[in-house]
Amino acid sequence: MSEKILIFDSTLRDGAQAEGISFSVEDKMRVMETLDKIGVDYIEAGNPGSNPKDIEFFNRIKGLQLKHAKLVAFGSTRRGGISVEEDANLKAILETQTPAVAIFGKSWTFHITDIIKTTLEENLRMIEDTMAYLKAMGKEVTFDAEHFFDGYKADPVYAIEALLAAQAGGADCLALCDTNGGALPFEIAEIVKDVRKKLAIPLGIHCHNDSGMAVANSIMAVQAGVRQVQGTFLGYGERCGNANLASIIPNLQLKMGYHCLASEELLKLTSSAIRIAEISNYVLSGREPFVGKSAFAHKGGMHIDAVMKNPQSFEHIPPEAVGNERRILMSEVSGRSTIIQLINEVDPSLTKKSEETTRVMDRIKELEYQGYQFEGAESSVKLLILKELGKYKPFFTLEDFKTIGEQPHHKEALSSSAVVKINVDGQSEINAAEGDGPVNALDKALRKALEVFYPNIRDVRLTDFKVRVIDSKSATASKVRVLIESSDGQDIWSNVGVSTDIIEASLIALIDSIEYKLLNDMERQSDSR
Amino acid sequence: MSEKILIFDSTLRDGAQAEGISFSVEDKMRVMETLDKIGVDYIEAGNPGSNPKDIEFFNRIKGLQLKHAKLVAFGSTRRGGISVEEDANLKAILETQTPAVAIFGKSWTFHITDIIKTTLEENLRMIEDTMAYLKAMGKEVTFDAEHFFDGYKADPVYAIEALLAAQAGGADCLALCDTNGGALPFEIAEIVKDVRKKLAIPLGIHCHNDSGMAVANSIMAVQAGVRQVQGTFLGYGERCGNANLASIIPNLQLKMGYHCLASEELLKLTSSAIRIAEISNYVLSGREPFVGKSAFAHKGGMHIDAVMKNPQSFEHIPPEAVGNERRILMSEVSGRSTIIQLINEVDPSLTKKSEETTRVMDRIKELEYQGYQFEGAESSVKLLILKELGKYKPFFTLEDFKTIGEQPHHKEALSSSAVVKINVDGQSEINAAEGDGPVNALDKALRKALEVFYPNIRDVRLTDFKVRVIDSKSATASKVRVLIESSDGQDIWSNVGVSTDIIEASLIALIDSIEYKLLNDMERQSDSR
Repeated sequence: MSEKILIFDSTLRDGAQAEGISFSVEDKMRVMETLDKIGVDYIEAGNPGSNPKDIEFFNRIKGLQLKHAKLVAFGSTRRGGISVEEDANLKAILETQTPAVAIFGKSWTFHITDIIKTTLEENLRMIEDTMAYLKAMGKEVTFDAEHFFDGYKADPVYAIEALLAAQAGGADCLALCDTNGGALPFEIAEIVKDVRKKLAIPLGIHCHNDSGMAVANSIMAVQAGVRQVQGTFLGYGERCGNANLASIIPNLQLKMGYHCLASEELLKLTSSAIRIAEISNYVLSGREPFVGKSAFAHKGGMHIDAVMKNPQSFEHIPPEAVGNERRILMSEVSGRSTIIQLINEVDPSLTKKSEETTRVMDRIKELEYQGYQFEGAESSVKLLILKELGKYKPFFTLEDFKTIGEQPHHKEALSSSAVVKINVDGQSEINAAEGDGPVNALDKALRKALEVFYPNIRDVRLTDFKVRVIDSKSATASKVRVLIESSDGQDIWSNVGVSTDIIEASLIALIDSIEYKLLNDMERQSDSR
Repeated sequence: MSEKILIFDSTLRDGAQAEGISFSVEDKMRVMETLDKIGVDYIEAGNPGSNPKDIEFFNRIKGLQLKHAKLVAFGSTRRGGISVEEDANLKAILETQTPAVAIFGKSWTFHITDIIKTTLEENLRMIEDTMAYLKAMGKEVTFDAEHFFDGYKADPVYAIEALLAAQAGGADCLALCDTNGGALPFEIAEIVKDVRKKLAIPLGIHCHNDSGMAVANSIMAVQAGVRQVQGTFLGYGERCGNANLASIIPNLQLKMGYHCLASEELLKLTSSAIRIAEISNYVLSGREPFVGKSAFAHKGGMHIDAVMKNPQSFEHIPPEAVGNERRILMSEVSGRSTIIQLINEVDPSLTKKSEETTRVMDRIKELEYQGYQFEGAESSVKLLILKELGKYKPFFTLEDFKTIGEQPHHKEALSSSAVVKINVDGQSEINAAEGDGPVNALDKALRKALEVFYPNIRDVRLTDFKVRVIDSKSATASKVRVLIESSDGQDIWSNVGVSTDIIEASLIALIDSIEYKLLNDMERQSDSR
């Protein structure tokens, strides 16, 4: 049996202090459910003593039995000069009725004398009293030693005394906090080792990412002996954020042999990350370790060749282990190995050395030189291959279009209209639409005209639309690259267009998108025959 | 004197392998200039043997003398079974004429036997031959021991032999690469210490971020004795990216007492990061350590109180040390401190508590809610303040406009035309122009009409034009934010416009830009009277 590391998630408390995050009670419910499902051990749900919105959430979840996790209420030691029974903050914590609590207290002398302005002795009493009181109330208590590493560096004797006070009060776990995120990994290792010698109860670690090392600092602390890791699921938190549990968990479990989550739950790591990012209204960075879209995406030609021979050559873990997937990207630095897979879908007889493969590669290079970028636009590549191999019969031709933009006289009116004329097998169709801007108007007019011939176009909707200015030196006449994502409810596909004219770039991508849909429908029909 | 750590930036090479990055030659020039200005020691500019776009860039910079940095060409050891003189890749590297080169070679037996499929002995010869050849050609040579840590873990004796071969060939520096990004910080420290015992020449480190620890791993390596740190300025790179130099540099310099950049250059860290992110067409994450917008932003009530008493209480370094700034979020006194400075430029009698200040703040909040973002668009804020304070008399009104877009019949023709009617002091002027897309046509027509009244408009040109889709869920009708930068040869200013219609968003920004120019000219005239 591998040793258990307790995972303590503070997305709903420390995460909520991140710039740009504002959870509704409903959001908090969904985050809590997601965390419980994947099997974290503690969910710190808020600070009832300081935040009225948190009290609302605690009322909502009062008495709730989760599948696995323990709910935790967060707050501080009693204030100086009063008794624990008089403390409004502790009262609020007890009212939440959570089985566990996390109580922060001071261990850095500077914070005691200069910020909360009490005596070093009273601070120790505040810690011990608060622990003893909450233990007497039947709580599982974690003491968060705020600024512990800064405190230890300034006055190691006092910092340890603060921990001893918590131990004397009966705390179940002492979490050492790098509150300002300034500690370095070798400092963490050394200090944790010293603390372990002087204290008898389990230790925890709580890191912030201001130095870009919160994940590594947490790992170093575990290696030095801590058994509870605090963080937020995606690293959201004040300033540069907290330690990212979605990185820490797979490092501990897949590389260091500790047990954090049931291994079948680890497979949900990527989907849980996407879900929590969604609820938090953040775009999950593609570069996010383990769970990002690019985490196992290969672009360099040599890398792609090697990964095809053996994925271990350029992957530190198998992507499936965390529910992610390998992706091979198209690009000027990638090679024939990528393209040949797509070419073989169209014509299995061709090889890397075929003259047709060279032609396709040349065409892709030429377009990339013009500013195209085919990563994430695999369906545009497929159309390109069909065209280069002479296997493509267009479903329609765009004969003519006009767009007209006007400053609308009424606030409610749409500013643009478009006229589109298409031709399908010699038969012309002209139609028009109004829209919010010329691209939107053209999109609508084109679909209206096409629906006469291809009624299934009606199911297609654009799900994403991205514009990038490629060379911004020439300002309003710069080249733009438009990337659109479409869906018909069954599939999702992406297309790209490049031009100095945003309308033309959009049209190229729109037409590709529609062609791809029609092609796919045709293939599906012939498959089912 | 503190000890020097050499900073080796690979944004233009490893960074270019990141998903979503596609540098034009012009982009590369600008990245190179930014890196040189801040004072990195090496700029790895590309892989001439594998990438035609990189050759174009190397031709462009051939013989260029930078202020501080050395240019580096990147490539691999000679191929198995041929001589160094026959190797096309080495030939391409020599043709670049860069003073320094970085050559990667294999040190993991599995890669030699299973991926490049040669013998362990031939691989050692490939390394030694290549080093000796490039040294004979007068180059400063770094040997990048690819997959060194995985190689060492699998077969420490052979991994060291690969380094010894490079040393025997005359390499100047041995960079130990964690190519797959899977190593843990304590492993890095241990392995580097062992390597130092066995090799005599300087060591470097090259980490990837797949485990979320590239910064910490680099720091651990320096602590264990390496003196060259490779990374990319913002961590861009294949998969989860490379070690982030913008995090590593301040950690080394401000916390560990090493010398990386001149201290006055360190003040440019944040602005350089913003510039490189912009050129890469990435949004710099607010949470980015040291250089992010949120890196020194305080949101929690207790944190804000403490920071006001003493910033050290919740800041690991002073934000000014890296050219960043403290921000106080969500508080009555916050925001106002910034805005009041701009308000006082217009009316020095107003204070934070004035009713006018509240009105300006409310208007800014409302616009930010709509998707405006005023960072980097201070001239739009200035116009907004003048308008809110009733101190603004518009220089013109846009009475009407029309844009017409058509599929051009001749390839050379411009696709759009625009008609604009403006009014200045009761006098109307109508004019028209053709352009590359509707925004370009409108821009030209508007200027032509305005020049009749304000001939100095002729000096203004747009120097940058950026489009960002804000809410991409509603596809072609999504909201876009247009940011334009203008210059009249004396000043540079930026303006912002937001709308669901790209034309409207562009027009808002264009009109603001022109208003700002006319206002500035008027103020200059009255100053010189």
